[in-house]
Amino acid sequence: MRKGCVYLVGAGPGDPGLVTLRAMELITGADVIVYDRLIPEGLLDHARADAELIYAGKHHGHHCIPQQQINQLLVQRARSGMSVVRLKGGDPFVFGRGGEEALELVEAGVPFEIVPGVTASVATAAYAGIPVTHRGVASSLNLVTGHESPEKTLSHLDFHSLANSGGTLAFYMGVTNLGSICSKLIDNGLDPQTPAAAIRWGTTSRQQVITATVETLPGVAKQSQLKPPAMILIGDVVRLREKLQWFESRPLFGRRIVVPRTRREPSKLASQLRQLGAEVIELPTIRDDRPDYSNLSQVTDLLAAGEIHWMAFPNSLSVQYLFAEIPAESLGNRVCLASIGPTTTATLRDSGLEPTIEAKDQSIQGLIVAILGQGV
Amino acid sequence: MRKGCVYLVGAGPGDPGLVTLRAMELITGADVIVYDRLIPEGLLDHARADAELIYAGKHHGHHCIPQQQINQLLVQRARSGMSVVRLKGGDPFVFGRGGEEALELVEAGVPFEIVPGVTASVATAAYAGIPVTHRGVASSLNLVTGHESPEKTLSHLDFHSLANSGGTLAFYMGVTNLGSICSKLIDNGLDPQTPAAAIRWGTTSRQQVITATVETLPGVAKQSQLKPPAMILIGDVVRLREKLQWFESRPLFGRRIVVPRTRREPSKLASQLRQLGAEVIELPTIRDDRPDYSNLSQVTDLLAAGEIHWMAFPNSLSVQYLFAEIPAESLGNRVCLASIGPTTTATLRDSGLEPTIEAKDQSIQGLIVAILGQGV
Repeated sequence: MRKGCVYLVGAGPGDPGLVTLRAMELITGADVIVYDRLIPEGLLDHARADAELIYAGKHHGHHCIPQQQINQLLVQRARSGMSVVRLKGGDPFVFGRGGEEALELVEAGVPFEIVPGVTASVATAAYAGIPVTHRGVASSLNLVTGHESPEKTLSHLDFHSLANSGGTLAFYMGVTNLGSICSKLIDNGLDPQTPAAAIRWGTTSRQQVITATVETLPGVAKQSQLKPPAMILIGDVVRLREKLQWFESRPLFGRRIVVPRTRREPSKLASQLRQLGAEVIELPTIRDDRPDYSNLSQVTDLLAAGEIHWMAFPNSLSVQYLFAEIPAESLGNRVCLASIGPTTTATLRDSGLEPTIEAKDQSIQGLIVAILGQGV
Repeated sequence: MRKGCVYLVGAGPGDPGLVTLRAMELITGADVIVYDRLIPEGLLDHARADAELIYAGKHHGHHCIPQQQINQLLVQRARSGMSVVRLKGGDPFVFGRGGEEALELVEAGVPFEIVPGVTASVATAAYAGIPVTHRGVASSLNLVTGHESPEKTLSHLDFHSLANSGGTLAFYMGVTNLGSICSKLIDNGLDPQTPAAAIRWGTTSRQQVITATVETLPGVAKQSQLKPPAMILIGDVVRLREKLQWFESRPLFGRRIVVPRTRREPSKLASQLRQLGAEVIELPTIRDDRPDYSNLSQVTDLLAAGEIHWMAFPNSLSVQYLFAEIPAESLGNRVCLASIGPTTTATLRDSGLEPTIEAKDQSIQGLIVAILGQGV
């Protein structure tokens, strides 16, 4: 990694698995990381412990730091000899203002590199079971920005072209102006019965997909209280979701599971639960080979709100680790507890807790089978 | 990784660094990999030694294996209990026929997952210094397929919409029909002076970029003997390349360097040379902790064609490793040799070779400085 260089890096659509190898290498090595709101959860855990992390995202629609100031920050940190990663959701050049930042760097004589990312429209559609192009259905995909600020009009767009392209349309940041987008498309000749979808938190375990027609989508979105950020997809390809839905069909989709960790190696249990669709929260996380309880408050908040479905204990030590930090009473009786075997069960009982289920064969696989069998 | 499951995986645009973490995890673990032509060089080196690798790409415009047979292959391997990766360049759902394969899997009751990849248009543009969207210049990006078979017409596209969208246009597989694409756009109202670019081998060290206007691009492409595969970009954003070009400006861009390896750890020298823009060929590669000389013939062919610029020797053992396989005479006198210090130089001389340059301070950094200083 070059000192004095700025890397404009796309972090992909949300799933941490869709980060590129190059992006991860740079995040791991950077002196400074200037990051936006919509980057994958947990990604910054990979930063160096002594890296400077600067949040440049939005709060309530306003930029925390104005764009001009972000540009100055990048130039200043690079000039002082640091390696700087500018981390953005999706891709830096697809409605990411990466071009503006790059021009500032050129102006200032600061070397830079671009690391493209998986862009949100293509990926959120894929995770919703919608191929953005499909032989005989759509041979083009138009990526369009809809703006989230209600003051801005949509005058930058040629709706006649959009309505008549015959291809798939993907509106980034289109929720606020959804009604206006859909009616302008219909006014310009798009069949009101054209299938349409809105995808919120796409590619993550919180993914929410609404389907309707271009005529009915604004109403359906309102009813579902759809909020930004979301991706709007319009075109006949949306119909394929009926057959191709796979992500939300996985057995643990929508389940939130706490996995207490005791080792520095990546948790196999966590990884397997994630592949079955679960949202897994590891507590503690392991950072620089030491346990890190910084996500403890997130877990206790979710516990209080009744939004943790399972805690899965792969050994008795994990019981001790967790309840050294959380009082057993805070669990209430809404969380299901999965134990890998008799020793772990005994340790849970010592803390005054009764496991919901115990694995039959004392293996990670057995623990997962037990959770799946419970159907919770 | 699930047995009996098919993973439709995008391998990104060509740069091995733009492969996603999830794609790499699956490639590393798969029982079977069915792959296309345009996947990053060296990516399959990460497959298991006992994995079955099946080439399904095109030869001279014809599919090696017809699509129907690819579908059957995926179903059959999955049903026999294997984990199957279907590996495609770019993204499986952006002109990648992933939707068709997924429908076949649904039909056959075979579980599947989609792993989106970095799509070629956005990434090749970024590596050419062209932001596909840019505030005040382009607020949409239209991805379009141009077909490479001359028998096929472009009747699937609405050129009036394309010509009047006001945004950036990216034509995948557009070289064969380039003349027809550009004239149809102009006939439908696109300003003939609109900037346009063609990018071949984008994001790799062989990247070749041609810029012109939509009117002159077909002629310029013909003069430059541009062949498929290439990405065609049309729109005012192309003008930004003049300022934002970064990839081809790196000091070793276009240089091909052989780095002989002796250790199983990733070569720091290779990684640093790549970051400076060089195309690095490691010989041997290390596979399953053993040296693997399977890319030897590639190196000897390039040597014979005079297309290796440097060989960089980070220690004397690397000299011995390489010349145990290649006769010293095969180098001719066109390849520059860089030695890290006196011991390595002595070993080279034992093989009858004189280094072009020796590092001043016996370090990897010194070796790189020496190569850069030579200006070859």
